[in-house]
Amino acid sequence: MSKFMNLARKFNCFYFNGKCDLQHCRPFLVCGKQVGVMQARVVEAACRHPDVFQMDSSGMISMHPSLTTYEERSARINHVLSQWKEERLFVTLKGWRNECYEVRTGFADPPLLKMDRSAACLFGVRQYGVEINGYTRHPQLGMSLWLQRRALSKPTWPGKWDNMVAGGLSVGHSVLDTALKEAEEEASIPAHLLANLRSAGSVSFYFESERGLFPNTEFVYDLELPADFVPHNSDGEVDIFELVPVNQVMERIFTPEYKTTSCPTTLDFLIRHGFINSDNEPRLPELVELLHIPLHYLYSQSSSQSPISSN
Amino acid sequence: MSKFMNLARKFNCFYFNGKCDLQHCRPFLVCGKQVGVMQARVVEAACRHPDVFQMDSSGMISMHPSLTTYEERSARINHVLSQWKEERLFVTLKGWRNECYEVRTGFADPPLLKMDRSAACLFGVRQYGVEINGYTRHPQLGMSLWLQRRALSKPTWPGKWDNMVAGGLSVGHSVLDTALKEAEEEASIPAHLLANLRSAGSVSFYFESERGLFPNTEFVYDLELPADFVPHNSDGEVDIFELVPVNQVMERIFTPEYKTTSCPTTLDFLIRHGFINSDNEPRLPELVELLHIPLHYLYSQSSSQSPISSN
Repeated sequence: MSKFMNLARKFNCFYFNGKCDLQHCRPFLVCGKQVGVMQARVVEAACRHPDVFQMDSSGMISMHPSLTTYEERSARINHVLSQWKEERLFVTLKGWRNECYEVRTGFADPPLLKMDRSAACLFGVRQYGVEINGYTRHPQLGMSLWLQRRALSKPTWPGKWDNMVAGGLSVGHSVLDTALKEAEEEASIPAHLLANLRSAGSVSFYFESERGLFPNTEFVYDLELPADFVPHNSDGEVDIFELVPVNQVMERIFTPEYKTTSCPTTLDFLIRHGFINSDNEPRLPELVELLHIPLHYLYSQSSSQSPISSN
Repeated sequence: MSKFMNLARKFNCFYFNGKCDLQHCRPFLVCGKQVGVMQARVVEAACRHPDVFQMDSSGMISMHPSLTTYEERSARINHVLSQWKEERLFVTLKGWRNECYEVRTGFADPPLLKMDRSAACLFGVRQYGVEINGYTRHPQLGMSLWLQRRALSKPTWPGKWDNMVAGGLSVGHSVLDTALKEAEEEASIPAHLLANLRSAGSVSFYFESERGLFPNTEFVYDLELPADFVPHNSDGEVDIFELVPVNQVMERIFTPEYKTTSCPTTLDFLIRHGFINSDNEPRLPELVELLHIPLHYLYSQSSSQSPISSN
């Protein structure tokens, strides 16, 4: 097994751990359609709120069908989460964000409810973000990537190396808007350079940590920068930026100092630009498949009941 | 459902048709490990050769364990296929290629046997090829792709539009060698322009036709060409080449004149270069996942018997 393949199994640890079945976790449905996956410890806590969650005979957990609107569902789940937070039931809720996340059956579908971002991993809700590979063809260093070291104050992955710009999609922002906003806040990229921002696809992977489940999709952008441009942080979320030649990036991603869940976007860049290829990775197609696992196809359960109104 | 998503379901029709299960088809194993999938009509024919194929109690078909070497397995399967060809049992064997295809458990694993390329789809053996997106930033047309129309004499997809250069990997050729060889034979690209050839990853999809099953992986290359270069064919396999602006490519791929199984590579190019993005395809992540379905993970059956020597 190559180093790259090992890394791909690490950020896809939930996809590979063989626990993605009904014995270990339950599909979580809203309005008759699957939106997430719940581990046993979360199922146990949820079953103490039968007015909010109900389990059907096949073992699937649904939000109670009496909760018929976006507002009702959001308010009731927020109430439950606040209680869990108070009870210190789940470590992830210590990092309460006061920033909400929309829950949908598919990315382009209408939102069914919102919940605090810190709770999404308890329900195995797919999370979407944007990441920008900032790169330059440097006259001395050759092709190089701008990496950021995350601030020590960040609630997740403090002090770890990360792609130049990264941010979660939250309520009310489009994908491109989020990319532009984060590029300005995190790296102070001026508008005339952002004109070169190019959409380059997405990566999908399924990570698990002590906090919970992370079925993540990142919208990937490439931004070529002039060799003399230096990003600087405006919002306090970045410690430092460093311009790292590609051959060093290909070593740093394997260190514990690199944020595991940022590796898919970095690997995707290295593959798309030819630095990882069939010569240095004999299992290239398998590696590429592991950067795009079928998250949207995995969440395919629906209840036998007719779906409830999703307004 | 968007046009792009519909197209992705078309070239992934076997992945979606719900027949990828033991009731409709059987895993095909060699040396205790899965290398393919057999549909009922092929299982029926194979069972008439119990000295070559055997079905175990769980319904999996294996090559007979008494066939212990690459040479023996290749010779015996060739014998069976010649008989089936004579009996006109399967339409795909009418296109006998006299060109062999290596069968392996994974792309980087040692070959277990070889068989004629026309028979690979009967056994649902993963097939690998290379495709080159030849493009130019044309002063008048803007970003444009060179497409080829396949010769009417080709055994498969005659007369259909295709990517500039495409070829299957066959015995004894590396991925990059195949790309260079095909670029020279199919499009007469001179060596100094081929120096720009850049590996850009791979696509994986699962197509089904009347001929059989096509779990295909294409190694994808990009080649930027000068605006005044015109490819011409040297081996009789191409009818004409045409330089097509990207916006027209994005229409042509939906026509019946475009080779269905070449769409994944074209779509991957359009996504990597930002022409298909979250603005014009709200389900971009799902589309990207469908260009990289987990073919290598799908073929994961192994027999309870200990594996036989794979020499």
